[in-house]
Amino acid sequence: MHEWKERTRPIRLERRFEFDSYEQTRDFLDELGKLCESINRFPDISFGKTYVNLTLMPESEEENAPLTDKDNETASKIDAILD
Amino acid sequence: MHEWKERTRPIRLERRFEFDSYEQTRDFLDELGKLCESINRFPDISFGKTYVNLTLMPESEEENAPLTDKDNETASKIDAILD
Repeated sequence: MHEWKERTRPIRLERRFEFDSYEQTRDFLDELGKLCESINRFPDISFGKTYVNLTLMPESEEENAPLTDKDNETASKIDAILD
Repeated sequence: MHEWKERTRPIRLERRFEFDSYEQTRDFLDELGKLCESINRFPDISFGKTYVNLTLMPESEEENAPLTDKDNETASKIDAILD
């Protein structure tokens, strides 16, 4: 199980990551960028000096498409950056 | 003059940048990261595949501190990345 929260309107997964320093935030964002490019999924990303908020929409772009196992896999791959 | 919008509650500068591709978005974010580290100012940054939204708070962390020339200079330095 991952720690993402499922939200509605629109349907999405969200997770907040907090860091102790800007350097840690930057390193996470660098790895996240590489991952996004390699799997061609681009979550919405909000960040400041020591936090990153991610919003992952369903992979299907159809209106009201549900979250699927593939979306949960993407979330788990993002979590794995911190392992 | 720069194209940032001054907002209140809290007092801040905001600007949205739009790009044609993820590569352009990433290049802008890379340069922005270098600039932020060099001037030690860290705006709140929100981005997706082809957009970046920036929020710049007043440099002074006192409550209700106004925006100053230094904040406008920071905004102009960010704009200059795209020149």
